[in-house]
Amino acid sequence: MTALVAGAGGTGAGEIFQLLRDGRPRTRAELAQLTGLARSTIGARIDALADVGLVGAVADGVSTGGRPPRRVALLPEARLVLAVDVGASHVRLALTDLLGRVLRTRGEAVDVATGPQHVLGRVLDVATALLEDAGRSPRHVLAVGVGLPGPVHFETGRPSRPPIMPGWDGFDVPGWFREHLAAPVLVDNDVNIMALGEHSTLEEPVEHFLFVKVATGVGAGIISGGLLQRGAQGIAGDIGHVRVTRGEGVLCQCGNEGCLEALASGPAVAAALRRQGIDARTAGDVVALVDAGDLAAVQAVRQAGRDLGEVLAASISFLNPSVIAIGGRMAAAGEHLLAGVREVVYQRAVPLATQHLQIVTSRATDRAALLGAGMLAIQHVLSPAGVEALAAGARTPG
Amino acid sequence: MTALVAGAGGTGAGEIFQLLRDGRPRTRAELAQLTGLARSTIGARIDALADVGLVGAVADGVSTGGRPPRRVALLPEARLVLAVDVGASHVRLALTDLLGRVLRTRGEAVDVATGPQHVLGRVLDVATALLEDAGRSPRHVLAVGVGLPGPVHFETGRPSRPPIMPGWDGFDVPGWFREHLAAPVLVDNDVNIMALGEHSTLEEPVEHFLFVKVATGVGAGIISGGLLQRGAQGIAGDIGHVRVTRGEGVLCQCGNEGCLEALASGPAVAAALRRQGIDARTAGDVVALVDAGDLAAVQAVRQAGRDLGEVLAASISFLNPSVIAIGGRMAAAGEHLLAGVREVVYQRAVPLATQHLQIVTSRATDRAALLGAGMLAIQHVLSPAGVEALAAGARTPG
Repeated sequence: MTALVAGAGGTGAGEIFQLLRDGRPRTRAELAQLTGLARSTIGARIDALADVGLVGAVADGVSTGGRPPRRVALLPEARLVLAVDVGASHVRLALTDLLGRVLRTRGEAVDVATGPQHVLGRVLDVATALLEDAGRSPRHVLAVGVGLPGPVHFETGRPSRPPIMPGWDGFDVPGWFREHLAAPVLVDNDVNIMALGEHSTLEEPVEHFLFVKVATGVGAGIISGGLLQRGAQGIAGDIGHVRVTRGEGVLCQCGNEGCLEALASGPAVAAALRRQGIDARTAGDVVALVDAGDLAAVQAVRQAGRDLGEVLAASISFLNPSVIAIGGRMAAAGEHLLAGVREVVYQRAVPLATQHLQIVTSRATDRAALLGAGMLAIQHVLSPAGVEALAAGARTPG
Repeated sequence: MTALVAGAGGTGAGEIFQLLRDGRPRTRAELAQLTGLARSTIGARIDALADVGLVGAVADGVSTGGRPPRRVALLPEARLVLAVDVGASHVRLALTDLLGRVLRTRGEAVDVATGPQHVLGRVLDVATALLEDAGRSPRHVLAVGVGLPGPVHFETGRPSRPPIMPGWDGFDVPGWFREHLAAPVLVDNDVNIMALGEHSTLEEPVEHFLFVKVATGVGAGIISGGLLQRGAQGIAGDIGHVRVTRGEGVLCQCGNEGCLEALASGPAVAAALRRQGIDARTAGDVVALVDAGDLAAVQAVRQAGRDLGEVLAASISFLNPSVIAIGGRMAAAGEHLLAGVREVVYQRAVPLATQHLQIVTSRATDRAALLGAGMLAIQHVLSPAGVEALAAGARTPG
């Protein structure tokens, strides 16, 4: 409710900004007419937005004679967000403008198991180098979006019992950044971040979208009603341990049997190939064999696709998405994985749901996480409440 | 975006109303301070809301000496919504105030297969009688919410290939009402409506909620991020045809095998009992046998619960809800059904998701649909855009 109207003591700048967010220049008179606010109020709010560098006066291309009215517009590159993708064995960073365009990237090999102090220290060093390269100061960074390779409690930004991240459980990631950087920090798991990134690359707006990552594990990021859905404990989309029919007797690391991950993940497919005497350990090995035309590998990947298809058929009954994008290292096996998925989905799911459904491989591929971390930061900072907080913070007392 | 600020020509009344929606009386000065709007603007917007009967002056209980400032507040009973629950063999209607409280109900037996003209004609007659009983006129009705026993394209309010509703496919339900009533009409399927109704009876606000109806069919209504999720074609939650492991070789009406509905619906459980020589046809028969302590019926219901539990375990991985409510006629078998559900859910779903999960039987039971149809109408008409439209419509030109 407070986001709808300026709260007591608020500047109301957040609302004005939403009008300017489309990038179109407008005069103060136009803004007054659009909002019903007084010219003096508009002036004060524009000043607040200009103080924090979000909007500025733009040159008027079309002169109609006389002194042209001054127009204001979003300045997409005046301020930036920092996107951080922490993987099992790497960190990658990007500086992104306020429209989500990546300006510059930098990464390095870091083992996530070396713990949060070390990994985030490396992130900060890379960020500093990135800003220097770009000739920008930390003051230009409005927010930081971070993706981590494990479950995260989104509201607090703390990892929640992450299996491959020793030392990270409950670590206050935003708190750590706060000692080094003034900008707000948003943290989420890698699959949610990738879903946001992939979603931002779709040609048309999609309200109901599913991103599935198939790699060492299997997980999904869900966008319903245009919004990323995290669920009550932030673990919506954790589909790796849904049971599949072929799984009877197949034990999973989690202690249950028949989990999707125990059948369709990279290591699971590699294990199936080893049982046929073929040397394979990782998703990468499997993809290499498929690329080399190994028939057993092609068949194993297709079967993994069918198992995944069974779970996706159920997800379609629950969520009725219009696009499902499949990413992660196993997606590099391309059409063989998708053929298995499609075979089962079109047989199992309701025709009304599959009639207009697109099932595609990720287009963003290894850029998905960085794009998504940027989107997470932008969505936060450019929301009415986010802009309001910025504009209020910039006003000097007296 | 236009909901955030008053659009060109808009009254801005929608925003002011959101502040008053909590029912607390406020002075014009307080509203001016909360919104930053000019006193004259506040006055005009309050007048517009008063014109349509949404707000009014209220007596001030506490006098602090001198002339007390006049306060305005939401008038919950000045305007009403009409809730309509169309079932396979009945119509039930309620008049509901703007806080969702049911003022008066009325129903009658009508076969939905007699077609839309006849059924909606009965609905209109019952509505007229309800209004007369209540001493109200159709002008007091701000919106109508309708639940139908089949898939509905929500945006247009037209049924979409409903299996048990001959003559209804593609029928323009809102258009039919428009010829008889000025208020906007919202139409959705019965399970979504029941989810809204059950959700409104929860003691605490729940952001991620699943309502499951188990009766002649099996379906779910999904609330994620506080909003009902309908999916791309409006069929999110259509879980009756998700495959369950016990289902190998069990044929479903849909042509597939192993569908949840073919194992756990009322008729499916009754059929299983008939194979044991027990006379049962419907969900009602099954519940009666369970109530009479029939051991075979208790065991069959518990097994149906396990099958349902398998699908719900998957739904928990997708959606991570904090409450799952089970309704529909089979829910009257109570703890036996739930015991089967819990047995599988706690074994299969991730512990982090089940730790704080509540699985309950419907509290709203047969009121769920009417409550939900009322909520659907209220949510529409009291949204900022809805109030805006009302207030704009009430202003006489000149």
